[in-house]
Amino acid sequence: VIAIDWGTSGFRAYRLDGHGNILKSRTTAKGILAVPAGGFAEVLEEQVGDWIAQGEAPIVMSGMVGSRQGWIEVPYVQCPAGFAEIAAAMREVRWGERRARIVPGLTCRDAAGVHDVMRGEEVQLLGVSDELPAAALVCLPGTHSKWVVFEHQKIAKFSTYMTGEAYAVLKQHTILGRMMEEGEPDARAFSEGVERSDEPGGLLHHLFGVRTRGLMGELGPAASASYLSGILIGHELRDAAGGSTRVHILGAPALAALYQQAAASLGIEVQALDPNAAVRALFRLGVMLRG
Amino acid sequence: VIAIDWGTSGFRAYRLDGHGNILKSRTTAKGILAVPAGGFAEVLEEQVGDWIAQGEAPIVMSGMVGSRQGWIEVPYVQCPAGFAEIAAAMREVRWGERRARIVPGLTCRDAAGVHDVMRGEEVQLLGVSDELPAAALVCLPGTHSKWVVFEHQKIAKFSTYMTGEAYAVLKQHTILGRMMEEGEPDARAFSEGVERSDEPGGLLHHLFGVRTRGLMGELGPAASASYLSGILIGHELRDAAGGSTRVHILGAPALAALYQQAAASLGIEVQALDPNAAVRALFRLGVMLRG
Repeated sequence: VIAIDWGTSGFRAYRLDGHGNILKSRTTAKGILAVPAGGFAEVLEEQVGDWIAQGEAPIVMSGMVGSRQGWIEVPYVQCPAGFAEIAAAMREVRWGERRARIVPGLTCRDAAGVHDVMRGEEVQLLGVSDELPAAALVCLPGTHSKWVVFEHQKIAKFSTYMTGEAYAVLKQHTILGRMMEEGEPDARAFSEGVERSDEPGGLLHHLFGVRTRGLMGELGPAASASYLSGILIGHELRDAAGGSTRVHILGAPALAALYQQAAASLGIEVQALDPNAAVRALFRLGVMLRG
Repeated sequence: VIAIDWGTSGFRAYRLDGHGNILKSRTTAKGILAVPAGGFAEVLEEQVGDWIAQGEAPIVMSGMVGSRQGWIEVPYVQCPAGFAEIAAAMREVRWGERRARIVPGLTCRDAAGVHDVMRGEEVQLLGVSDELPAAALVCLPGTHSKWVVFEHQKIAKFSTYMTGEAYAVLKQHTILGRMMEEGEPDARAFSEGVERSDEPGGLLHHLFGVRTRGLMGELGPAASASYLSGILIGHELRDAAGGSTRVHILGAPALAALYQQAAASLGIEVQALDPNAAVRALFRLGVMLRG
């Protein structure tokens, strides 16, 4: 199987043996934004044409390559969805004699009828689904954090939180950022931010405290950024965990560690999942194609 | 009395008769950011030197002219504060034979010990204090909205909400803004945003709904901006009103009307206050100087 994670800004390809072990991998910056219109087949051949030429390996791709800005738009699959539903909704692309499959994203609606969407995270989630208990809450922290309810190894529903993007723009473009500097993360200030998220007043008010605590000399330029991060992650955790006392985290180690620290101080038990599980899921989807 | 509101980006001067009526007013873009270091006296003379030359009128200035970036830094006065406390803490600036007074800003701490600050809004608040009941909650909506608890005509405490600035950066610098266009405000989408703020999930999640509702074709480019505004103002009102069923609004008519609409749909009764009351307060502070 040739497994490809093709996102907005990056392209990662894995050549897998018959057991799903990684034989070779390649990473480039050829994300979909760097591909000219109609140029997807050409880029794919450039990157892994030599692998494709060697056999009949199924090619499975996930991520923004299946979005409106990608190779083709693969419609979102409605939750609940597991391997079977996602495999059945893959779409084929062909060029010359060759073909590949693109994995769909997922969608669901909350109680108020508002939609949510993911594209790319579903393969990470499928990759860990076997390790989860019958009912589990999984957090994928990031620019747009996903909070996912698993029921019997299927994704039952999920919610997105704009935590990472809010942090970036508040730091870069508001009055809060004027007093900040890049520096070592400050664990104590981060922790104070998490505690702050639990106090009355709400997020829009807590944000202003980043400024006043800076003005009053209580926070230095690097600590201010950590305090802001703690406030935002604290709000996300409180709102998203919704009373759960156990959460699974699936993310890059540094970010996962921050979430673990914040969760601990809110009394939430955290278990880390393998952030590289997506390849396993793509392998299994490829095998299902053959079978 | 010569009353001056000297802010970050603007300068407004009023010449008042012995009863506080406005005889003349002048507005320029000479905010403190446009004044070179040490150049405040010169700019003041340029703008209202002819008024000063005509008599012994006290000059009272408020706003960022009293901040660290202003003419002199006038220390914040601790709440509770009313006319007497604020008048007593004014600081004098002199140039040649002439002098003027600068009004201090206010500060307070919340239950958790986090400071809040205002500078400029205090004169707007003093200007309406006589119209308020013995206990009142006043909202000054804006870039940094202020929520002010009055007790017996004094400012007892207050909280700042970064609503306006958050709206601006989310619209200009995040993925939410990519689907937005300037257009007529959409009252229905605004109202849906306010309702959304009352649903489970929290602000960071509700924000992502602006994107998904756009993706699903439920909101057009102009309606998306109104929906975002409704979400943010809704969260501010819910968090800041803290169960109060009656709020006084002091702000420019268009913004005050949005807050009134949002408050009504959350069951909060609103009374609008005169947004031009600052001049009355500066007049009274000037009279106190003489007396």
